[in-house]
Amino acid sequence: MKKLINDPKNVVTEAVEGFAAAHADIVRASTDPIYLVRSDAPSNKVGIVSGGGSGHEPMHGGFVGYGMLDAAVPGAVFTSPTPDPIVAATAAVNGGRGVLHIVKNYTGDVLNFETAADLAGADGIEVRSVIVNDDVAVKDSLYTAGRRGVAGTVLVEKIAGAAAQRGDSLEEVTAVAEKVIGQVRSMGVALTPCVVPHAGEPSFTLADDEIEIGIGIHGEPGRERVKLQPADAIVDRLLGPILDDIPFASGDKVLLMVNGMGGTPQVELYIVYRHAAKVLAERGIEVARSLVGNFTTSLEMQGMSISVLKLDDALTELWDAPVQTAALRWGR
Amino acid sequence: MKKLINDPKNVVTEAVEGFAAAHADIVRASTDPIYLVRSDAPSNKVGIVSGGGSGHEPMHGGFVGYGMLDAAVPGAVFTSPTPDPIVAATAAVNGGRGVLHIVKNYTGDVLNFETAADLAGADGIEVRSVIVNDDVAVKDSLYTAGRRGVAGTVLVEKIAGAAAQRGDSLEEVTAVAEKVIGQVRSMGVALTPCVVPHAGEPSFTLADDEIEIGIGIHGEPGRERVKLQPADAIVDRLLGPILDDIPFASGDKVLLMVNGMGGTPQVELYIVYRHAAKVLAERGIEVARSLVGNFTTSLEMQGMSISVLKLDDALTELWDAPVQTAALRWGR
Repeated sequence: MKKLINDPKNVVTEAVEGFAAAHADIVRASTDPIYLVRSDAPSNKVGIVSGGGSGHEPMHGGFVGYGMLDAAVPGAVFTSPTPDPIVAATAAVNGGRGVLHIVKNYTGDVLNFETAADLAGADGIEVRSVIVNDDVAVKDSLYTAGRRGVAGTVLVEKIAGAAAQRGDSLEEVTAVAEKVIGQVRSMGVALTPCVVPHAGEPSFTLADDEIEIGIGIHGEPGRERVKLQPADAIVDRLLGPILDDIPFASGDKVLLMVNGMGGTPQVELYIVYRHAAKVLAERGIEVARSLVGNFTTSLEMQGMSISVLKLDDALTELWDAPVQTAALRWGR
Repeated sequence: MKKLINDPKNVVTEAVEGFAAAHADIVRASTDPIYLVRSDAPSNKVGIVSGGGSGHEPMHGGFVGYGMLDAAVPGAVFTSPTPDPIVAATAAVNGGRGVLHIVKNYTGDVLNFETAADLAGADGIEVRSVIVNDDVAVKDSLYTAGRRGVAGTVLVEKIAGAAAQRGDSLEEVTAVAEKVIGQVRSMGVALTPCVVPHAGEPSFTLADDEIEIGIGIHGEPGRERVKLQPADAIVDRLLGPILDDIPFASGDKVLLMVNGMGGTPQVELYIVYRHAAKVLAERGIEVARSLVGNFTTSLEMQGMSISVLKLDDALTELWDAPVQTAALRWGR
């Protein structure tokens, strides 16, 4: 295992410390229990908390800040955070208008956020939860009943965060998050596996000429293993199921996201974007907004995912609203 | 070779097309010859052009936009662009106040930018050039006489770009670029090599337990190959030569940049940042600004570089000035 780490058991703690030090203008870290919270700590808005296993950075810590998340709770690598830090983060961002939990659909995350919501509720904090399940690759998976939550979560967090920032109520923020979840679909591909630090071995193997279509962000099996093929053909294999799912239709305006899995060169992401945009145009679907880069990663995995979100004027306005986080920033 | 590409010979063209499509609000692409240029094409300021071999993205195309570069000229992967596109890009951004070329110190880049400057000069465009050589690892290298230009180039481009944006003259913009070059030092490490698409093989090999200290961004040899060691020890090996070089001294204010080589998980970059910031604090050096992420990459290489730039009030003001590019954005 070749990694720039010290002790595998300190990876998350040290990364969180480094992150908070590098972005002290935006976040501060609580270390016991571990969570990241906005350093400006606004109190007059609905709070938004997300979290999940580490190893998917910048998700979620990189999305804490003005106009997006109020707190992020990182678990161990690829492991759900326990309820305690979720409760603590929820209490830290509660300004009296309630708190929304944005949860990716993995059994551990769902259970632990549910427990945390109950505990916070018992302390008098009004908590709502939404479950993101944008991955069309498979129904039920290694750690999931139903569909998995993947890179579409970034779009849910940005748009719900903008609604909370402008002062929407907990009910309204929850509704817009649910709306995004209903309108975003994703699917990914892996060229190589990644190595979880405390495991020291790849969680799966792929032959030199093999790729996994529909990979999960923890390396969970996808739809099929196929031979390596040209990027455009791979894009077709992902976009087909995505577009057929809602389905997306001619005349739709969409946000097209090409997300790197962590180890993919940027030139490859743009080669993917190029063909994806072309396919959408051929179907009469207008790419109104774009996002390309590493947003929901799997450590050093090489691969990418495509997400398509159907936009309307209301969602576009929230997407465009100012945001100031470590990983997404505009308008400020 | 496992890559998300179509034909190796079309990698740069297709990536540039995808990039321009994804960021049409910021850049547009010329395809014959190939260069990227600001879509808002301001004419009342000094123009700034950079460029070099592809494979280091987001450098340089990701830095084209308000407050940074006016144009970027990508060569083939790890290959200098020829003079023609440099001349075309220079002419495209010349608004009559002259053009600055920001060139990384590689023999091919220096020669081709020099030829281009002569040709543009013959067409009546006033061109100045600065050569970035921030890498303290080695004197003279595979493609370089003198020190190599690496990630510190990003800081030169941001700060010179801000000076040009506020209306400084060509002489002033050149002077501030030279000042940054004089005050920034960098050094990198590789854990793994990368594969150039048209070569299909890694350009060098490292044993499973071996890393290369002082690696160049094209995989050029560094100072030494050593056994894999804890991240903190690796940081010490890079920071020592960096800090001793100018030298940096107690009381200095600096910008600390931790740059990913393309395939490094973000948690690792922040573990590196954490220790680097600690070492600087112990030496009485204040980290006034930070930048962590993939800015000057070597395709999918795993590794990172550290850059330290000595700041003063004038440079800090230019660093903080608004910027709107695909890869760096704040204040707008």
